[in-house]
Amino acid sequence: MSIRSVNPRTGAAFGPEFVDTTKSEMEAVLDAAVASARPWAATARVVRAQALEAIADRLDADGDALAELADAETALGAARLSGEVSRTTYQLRMFASLLRSADVSWDMHDEAVAGAPPAGRPDLRRVLAPLGPVAVFAASNFPFAFSVAGGDTASALAAGCPVIVKAHPAHPQTSAAVGAHVRAALDRTDAPAGTFAVVHGFEAGRGLVLDSRVRAAAFTGSYEGGRALFDLAAGRPDPIPFYGELGSVNPVLVTPGGARRSAELAAGYVESLTLGAGQFCTNPGLLLAPRDTVLDAVAAAAAQARGGTFLYEGIASRFEERAASLSKVEGVRVVYRGAAGSGLSAPVVIMATDAESALANAGALQAECFGPAGIVVEYNDPDDALAFVDQLHGCLVATVHGDESEPLAAQFVSAAARVAGRVVWNGWPTGVAVSPAQHHGGPFPSTTNALHTSVGATAVYRFLRPIAFQNMPSRLMPDVVRAQVLTEQDAVGDR
Amino acid sequence: MSIRSVNPRTGAAFGPEFVDTTKSEMEAVLDAAVASARPWAATARVVRAQALEAIADRLDADGDALAELADAETALGAARLSGEVSRTTYQLRMFASLLRSADVSWDMHDEAVAGAPPAGRPDLRRVLAPLGPVAVFAASNFPFAFSVAGGDTASALAAGCPVIVKAHPAHPQTSAAVGAHVRAALDRTDAPAGTFAVVHGFEAGRGLVLDSRVRAAAFTGSYEGGRALFDLAAGRPDPIPFYGELGSVNPVLVTPGGARRSAELAAGYVESLTLGAGQFCTNPGLLLAPRDTVLDAVAAAAAQARGGTFLYEGIASRFEERAASLSKVEGVRVVYRGAAGSGLSAPVVIMATDAESALANAGALQAECFGPAGIVVEYNDPDDALAFVDQLHGCLVATVHGDESEPLAAQFVSAAARVAGRVVWNGWPTGVAVSPAQHHGGPFPSTTNALHTSVGATAVYRFLRPIAFQNMPSRLMPDVVRAQVLTEQDAVGDR
Repeated sequence: MSIRSVNPRTGAAFGPEFVDTTKSEMEAVLDAAVASARPWAATARVVRAQALEAIADRLDADGDALAELADAETALGAARLSGEVSRTTYQLRMFASLLRSADVSWDMHDEAVAGAPPAGRPDLRRVLAPLGPVAVFAASNFPFAFSVAGGDTASALAAGCPVIVKAHPAHPQTSAAVGAHVRAALDRTDAPAGTFAVVHGFEAGRGLVLDSRVRAAAFTGSYEGGRALFDLAAGRPDPIPFYGELGSVNPVLVTPGGARRSAELAAGYVESLTLGAGQFCTNPGLLLAPRDTVLDAVAAAAAQARGGTFLYEGIASRFEERAASLSKVEGVRVVYRGAAGSGLSAPVVIMATDAESALANAGALQAECFGPAGIVVEYNDPDDALAFVDQLHGCLVATVHGDESEPLAAQFVSAAARVAGRVVWNGWPTGVAVSPAQHHGGPFPSTTNALHTSVGATAVYRFLRPIAFQNMPSRLMPDVVRAQVLTEQDAVGDR
Repeated sequence: MSIRSVNPRTGAAFGPEFVDTTKSEMEAVLDAAVASARPWAATARVVRAQALEAIADRLDADGDALAELADAETALGAARLSGEVSRTTYQLRMFASLLRSADVSWDMHDEAVAGAPPAGRPDLRRVLAPLGPVAVFAASNFPFAFSVAGGDTASALAAGCPVIVKAHPAHPQTSAAVGAHVRAALDRTDAPAGTFAVVHGFEAGRGLVLDSRVRAAAFTGSYEGGRALFDLAAGRPDPIPFYGELGSVNPVLVTPGGARRSAELAAGYVESLTLGAGQFCTNPGLLLAPRDTVLDAVAAAAAQARGGTFLYEGIASRFEERAASLSKVEGVRVVYRGAAGSGLSAPVVIMATDAESALANAGALQAECFGPAGIVVEYNDPDDALAFVDQLHGCLVATVHGDESEPLAAQFVSAAARVAGRVVWNGWPTGVAVSPAQHHGGPFPSTTNALHTSVGATAVYRFLRPIAFQNMPSRLMPDVVRAQVLTEQDAVGDR
């Protein structure tokens, strides 16, 4: 099979053909990754930091052209895409600074204690070592930040793992351009040749998850695709960690106090809901608010909003299916629907229901509708709202709008923390800050492993396994271990 | 179904009947665990520390009687079992001290930075919150340290999770006695009633892994049992983390320098191999040494050793099966086999082969033979030994004996670190020290998740998930989050 880029605004194909990676090409990529695993793992932290910084520098220097290319393939808008390039390079530099930082030691040391156990013990040194080649599945909706040089790639390279990216068919040219920058930057820093590769095609992706040479996988995409790959990874003779981000409705819980700011709230909600044509994993698909407070304002704001353009045909048709079935759930009515534009234009859809109906149909209401569609759940009794939140499946993020002094605000925050990996107070869930303490993960099905994150400094731990060395002389410590340990001299020597 | 204790030395059943936990009893246990999850999670770290210390105090006070009871059920010997009680209480207190320690903060905080993203960011506070009810599968071979009040239970309770232990049928009375102490200690510290329970029977165990109220599971046992439960956990509509320790051959790699100490080495090897009738997950089932150096000494030491008594009939018969099939692997010969004693007595078995044959039959040689059976692999060319090690499946621990100055020593250490979660220098793998930096885990199949450990301070991370709070006022932080954060006052107030 082969594909070409499609301009979502016009439906026109453009640019070169991208042929699916063949089996023999896959063999070469995987062998090269294995051959590079030890030397890359044995590369000192500062050198890996330089490599990440070199990637960031190249992407920044080419940022405008990259954003323009990605816009032609995704219609996400050049401004948003330029911002996404900056976010991506900021993230690469964050992992580089983590590698340079003496604060972040991947090393615990218990000195020997004389005497009989349990108090007596040998000398134990626990170091984190890279897992080996990692498969990264790029996302459609973030052609930079969750794709070829995104957070999964940056954190796996930082950990010392070779990376094989399965490019997303929605932006093959952008993938190739970013991939060329990564390749060039790694070459400049003498990384082994197999440290990084980009492959194409459905079978290539499936093959990566099943291949014994691949030691972990990271994925951002749909529930269906992610669950299928998770099952393959778990079903292997040697199961591997599969870090999948599979989609999430991300509830916004409004207290009576919060609802007093109805105009501001409605404007903020609709802006967050329609950002990027609603194609965000953190898109706030559900809004719970007291009856007769914000629904009309939300409908009015929606009428002023533009839905944008879907990334590709598959997303557009799935959106229509899901929106249609949501509108048929008992108690749900459509309160606003934007006009259908040309091509892949995305209509803003606002639906409404009441908390009692929502509670009775909690399962059906949670089908993620990837795009600018929101359901406003109106409650009379806050207990119904709380009971509904307790029925929600795991989410990446939940948001609470209210006044600090309301008892209900604390109750909503607690309920939000039970279902989500991030809880936002009086803000909006879209726009995930790249910051060391960030957590972008959540209970299933929002991710396949609630302990891990794909954004933030701790993302690197997904690709490292501990090894304890017992009474081991320093001179015998393996290179791959020495490379993980940052000495004071390393940290300052290179600055 | 029901079981009674069996004395492995005599084959005689004794003591009360233990009836499998019924479905309705399971419902009650699971409902109670769910009801306790929030209050236990909201219990302050110091109070959880007190609870763990109270468990330890009660077990210590009853240590001699417990060891005697366990010896009657397991034939592991009163001295070893007394030591195991001490190890268990030491471990409970280690997790308590972790909870009291201001050094171990489950909290990261990025203060807000003004300005546009990516440099500008909101205030983000990342806290670890308990997952909810945890199922713990007790091991046959450690009636204390990996059973009812063992490391899995201690770390899950420390994390703030209720625990449901599936008792091992090899020591039901010991399980009941330890369970009663845990229950009494938790009651004294006002832990909610459902914080802890013990259940019995195969179906109860299966039911735990499949029940939506259970949020994680920890297991120590056989490959077959562990893989089956792992598959159930991964196949759920909402997959849960399954931390299984499934068995491991744990190679000992001897350099020519190490082999010069052949008598000492042979004695140490056979002692480690026969400890507890070889029924240790860290038992060194494979020894690689230069040809004609230590094999004769190992056989001689084996002839002086006692194999001990198997824990129960199933282990004895599986040992005979595995030993028989290993002896039929091409190139393998039996160099020593102890006389079969009465009842479940375990014969010491030493087999030998050469590195070339081992390399050609690497898969078959790695079937774990749980008991006092060792295979000595003799090498002429160290490269054959290294190639064989690279063919090994994941192990909990690998050991290297040599001289620090030999180049081969560093090569063996590197090879060991590629396959194992712990690497021992000039020592023995059995006797896992309880120490914060300890890592007792390893690549599949030794465990189902190489990132995690069942011993050491970091075992607690298996049962915690991060939540990031964005711009959240302190007063709105949920109780379960506040309980995880150690203030200076908490840390000193109670001492």
